[in-house]
Amino acid sequence: MEQITDIVRLETRGQGLYEMTSSVRQLVSRSAIATGLLTVFVRHTSCSLLIQENADPDVQTDLNGFFRRLVPEGMDWLVHTTEGPDDMPAHIKSALTQTSIGIPVVEGRLALGTWQGLYLFEHRRRPHQRDVVLHLIGEK
Amino acid sequence: MEQITDIVRLETRGQGLYEMTSSVRQLVSRSAIATGLLTVFVRHTSCSLLIQENADPDVQTDLNGFFRRLVPEGMDWLVHTTEGPDDMPAHIKSALTQTSIGIPVVEGRLALGTWQGLYLFEHRRRPHQRDVVLHLIGEK
Amino acid sequence: MEQITDIVRLETRGQGLYEMTSSVRQLVSRSAIATGLLTVFVRHTSCSLLIQENADPDVQTDLNGFFRRLVPEGMDWLVHTTEGPDDMPAHIKSALTQTSIGIPVVEGRLALGTWQGLYLFEHRRRPHQRDVVLHLIGEK
Repeated sequence: MEQITDIVRLETRGQGLYEMTSSVRQLVSRSAIATGLLTVFVRHTSCSLLIQENADPDVQTDLNGFFRRLVPEGMDWLVHTTEGPDDMPAHIKSALTQTSIGIPVVEGRLALGTWQGLYLFEHRRRPHQRDVVLHLIGEK
Repeated sequence: MEQITDIVRLETRGQGLYEMTSSVRQLVSRSAIATGLLTVFVRHTSCSLLIQENADPDVQTDLNGFFRRLVPEGMDWLVHTTEGPDDMPAHIKSALTQTSIGIPVVEGRLALGTWQGLYLFEHRRRPHQRDVVLHLIGEK
Repeated sequence: MEQITDIVRLETRGQGLYEMTSSVRQLVSRSAIATGLLTVFVRHTSCSLLIQENADPDVQTDLNGFFRRLVPEGMDWLVHTTEGPDDMPAHIKSALTQTSIGIPVVEGRLALGTWQGLYLFEHRRRPHQRDVVLHLIGEK
């Protein structure tokens, strides 16, 4: 049994989904692991992870639109407002999505479905540098 | 250390929760793994996974009712509408729940609590065939 | 490759976030595992898990405030009401957050970011005893 860890660093430029499927596929392919488990973990609390459809970009537009409506800026009862109007909504959107996702590796490939892509979901308006930790365990 | 992977195929007949606890328990029991980690991963973006109460079926009715109200069909600002009025709401409901769940195996059994069941949460109206990948790692 | 499992028992005293980062760090540190994967799993369906900011306690106040508004008590269409007005909202809040979280261990430490803490998110009003299962796999 082997393990590999890595960090993917993403530069985000505002709210939205940033695909990272190919970075993760490359780690799996480089490792030559045939059967295993990949864990993706984001080291922040104002962005998150999402597996979503990678075919029609409109899906991403609508996901953004929904979360912006569900957790709008300017909710007047918020207490934590010192870091800007988009900060507390960002924490809430993170709580509603994922910080960590596990994906099996089968026959040397991530078990993602045909239409599934892995995304970092950025919830802050300004550019940020985001670190995503990858952990892979398995056998060749 | 050993690994086992498997696929559970479910035929869904409309929106709602489909219990799959027993299929997963069987894999663990057949494997004879005493200590380990089971990962459940759904290969779709318009259904998802949920661990919920398995005692009173009304809980499932209310979960459905809540998600139908939180993410109704016919939100007029949606852009991705070509695959039917239930498609984009299905992607959003998936984003709000889980694509992947890890469950420890302790003393040869899944560490589920007494009232916990594992469900596929179907968000589309029409029948679908859904593939759920299971990955188990551990020792006898 | 080694595995360790443990249970953290928490006594909750009403709705809110209960930090359990240090209990989990202790397990990792005691194990002397250098590279691995920690899985945290809650054995209940009316509380859940969350990784969130541990710096400003106002973030926790606002997370509570948001979920209380998103899933209020007294929604008159609920069917499952026999266990009290806070019970079905608790199941829904659990469905919207996490039952299970995986955190990589890198260089002997949990890969949590600087501002990330691990919390049990209690959704019931009355005191409860909550069991969280920890599973750690890795190598020294």
